[in-house]
Amino acid sequence: MRVDGKAFRTIWVADDGQSVEIIDQTRLPHVFEKVTLSSVAAAAHAIRSMQVRGAPLIGVTAAYGVCLALAEDASDAALDAACEALLATRPTAVNLRFALDAMREAVAPLPPAERREAAWRRAGELADEDVRLCQAIGEHGAKLLHAAAKGEAPLQILTHCNAGWLATVDWGTALAPIYTAHEQGLPLHVWVDETRPRNQGASLTAWELLQHGVPHTVVADNAGGHLMRAGRVDFCITGSDRVAANGDVCNKIGTYLKALAAADNGIPYYAALPYTTIDWTLADGDAIPIEERSADEVGRITGRTDDGKLATVDILPAGSPAANPAFDVTPARLVTGLVTERGVCEASREGLLGLYPERR
Amino acid sequence: MRVDGKAFRTIWVADDGQSVEIIDQTRLPHVFEKVTLSSVAAAAHAIRSMQVRGAPLIGVTAAYGVCLALAEDASDAALDAACEALLATRPTAVNLRFALDAMREAVAPLPPAERREAAWRRAGELADEDVRLCQAIGEHGAKLLHAAAKGEAPLQILTHCNAGWLATVDWGTALAPIYTAHEQGLPLHVWVDETRPRNQGASLTAWELLQHGVPHTVVADNAGGHLMRAGRVDFCITGSDRVAANGDVCNKIGTYLKALAAADNGIPYYAALPYTTIDWTLADGDAIPIEERSADEVGRITGRTDDGKLATVDILPAGSPAANPAFDVTPARLVTGLVTERGVCEASREGLLGLYPERR
Repeated sequence: MRVDGKAFRTIWVADDGQSVEIIDQTRLPHVFEKVTLSSVAAAAHAIRSMQVRGAPLIGVTAAYGVCLALAEDASDAALDAACEALLATRPTAVNLRFALDAMREAVAPLPPAERREAAWRRAGELADEDVRLCQAIGEHGAKLLHAAAKGEAPLQILTHCNAGWLATVDWGTALAPIYTAHEQGLPLHVWVDETRPRNQGASLTAWELLQHGVPHTVVADNAGGHLMRAGRVDFCITGSDRVAANGDVCNKIGTYLKALAAADNGIPYYAALPYTTIDWTLADGDAIPIEERSADEVGRITGRTDDGKLATVDILPAGSPAANPAFDVTPARLVTGLVTERGVCEASREGLLGLYPERR
Repeated sequence: MRVDGKAFRTIWVADDGQSVEIIDQTRLPHVFEKVTLSSVAAAAHAIRSMQVRGAPLIGVTAAYGVCLALAEDASDAALDAACEALLATRPTAVNLRFALDAMREAVAPLPPAERREAAWRRAGELADEDVRLCQAIGEHGAKLLHAAAKGEAPLQILTHCNAGWLATVDWGTALAPIYTAHEQGLPLHVWVDETRPRNQGASLTAWELLQHGVPHTVVADNAGGHLMRAGRVDFCITGSDRVAANGDVCNKIGTYLKALAAADNGIPYYAALPYTTIDWTLADGDAIPIEERSADEVGRITGRTDDGKLATVDILPAGSPAANPAFDVTPARLVTGLVTERGVCEASREGLLGLYPERR
């Protein structure tokens, strides 16, 4: 997608063919800065510190992390160690495990001397596939948005966290339908949940939409319920970090509250995700591990001072503890449907199996 | 309540008997600073700028504002102008109208020369009455907490915004039962919603609880639903800015989302409020005016830098708009009960009339 009019992906192979470049998402929306990853440790750090985040992008970054590991040492032991280190970076998004399994499958059977080239090829395929998946999600989801439109007035869409192109390689999951419908001329407006404590909505979703000229308004996470009761939201859509086989949706903390409000007001709530986010091994969402992140993310916040510098401030009383669960699970009963690269289905085992019959 | 061990109210008559002192709540939790109000304009500014906030405290501050106006000019015209200016400061809390009506009733029938003394006396009575109301709410609510306790483990209570002593003259509404039960020895722990965008939970509730040694943990507003699903919340309680005659509860933006989650998980949700918060003129909550505050409250945040200074930072992309509705309405069907100075009732017309039969 475009940044100051120029097309970017969130991750790409550097000109030297030996390293990977990313956009440092911890600096947005204040500073647009690229970072070069030259080792598996750097890739693991980028995921853990959330320089890259979003389930699909975490997966692709991990795939490139395997390439960087093999460039140093292409042995079985190095492959195992790299996969273990990368898998441990973040617990909730299942795309990470998917990407590492795909990389291992592509390189493990080969003699070490052939692994490097195969790894770069496979990681590139995974990145390109992610773009195609998101484009397809955009097309299927845009049809839902057109169907929900009511005459001339802009369709009012609420989203939580960032499931835009910054969360994937390009296009996004929840935002792909919005970009697609916007480019097709559908009048729409996006309510952007701030998404405390890391503010991915205020920092990333708002920035993306601003760059692309999509009308939007940032609101505190608390506001969505009121907006829905007041008839000011027509459609809710988010991404997901892991969908269980029964359609339960794990996503950024706070998603469950918006799904409750949508259900209470008869507003559709969809989750948009590629097949790499579906965890067929889990019968329901209660078994999904919920990452507990640092309390500092609640107590400290970074922004621009009036003289344009970045500053980090403490907002809690010194001595008050904080807790920071990063995800929650929305039961399938609150999810109107799932939008995947294959189409739209009910959030249920039967719905998912209808789109993925090979999993029967 | 205590600040560094010393007892304070949130508002009191200064030693000169001619002005009023308040705690500047916009500076908490970083700086504890008193401000002297010497004119009705200063009182109106204190309410509008949220140096004082919380429905009961807004009412008492307005009452003292009338005293300050009459000290300058005790005419009918001055009384009218003062009441009009004070009533316009904030639209949602009905306690403001209650206090101004009470002041007018006390002074308007008197000749101007007798109004000043009567005004100070009546405002003092309103302040003292607020303390008694909150103490009674604390006693009734504490019984609910004891009844909800399960053996030795601390009772897990979630609250939203600040309805503590800082929101009233002393004790608080939602926090009064917590302080009372804590002093009675009930083991408890409070989950404190940060309460974006003005962070009254993180800034004020956490600070109050810390000062009083009540165990607590601050969480992002997004976290409460997850904590409830995970069985980590036993009881929800908030204050209210206005309760309609049918029991609908208007309170800080985001309360509705927590009430939905409590209902979805079979957890009781109570609102605690004095009779001055009940608006018998409104059949239901949909007619309550919802204050729309400045977008700057969403986009800018103040905290302490690492060198101990206060700094304000911008957190949105330059160019992204924000919206800031300050309250929402929780339908009575989601409210387990109302705790008032007279006891606990169902959130319904019949429930309220049971406690206030003189309103039949």
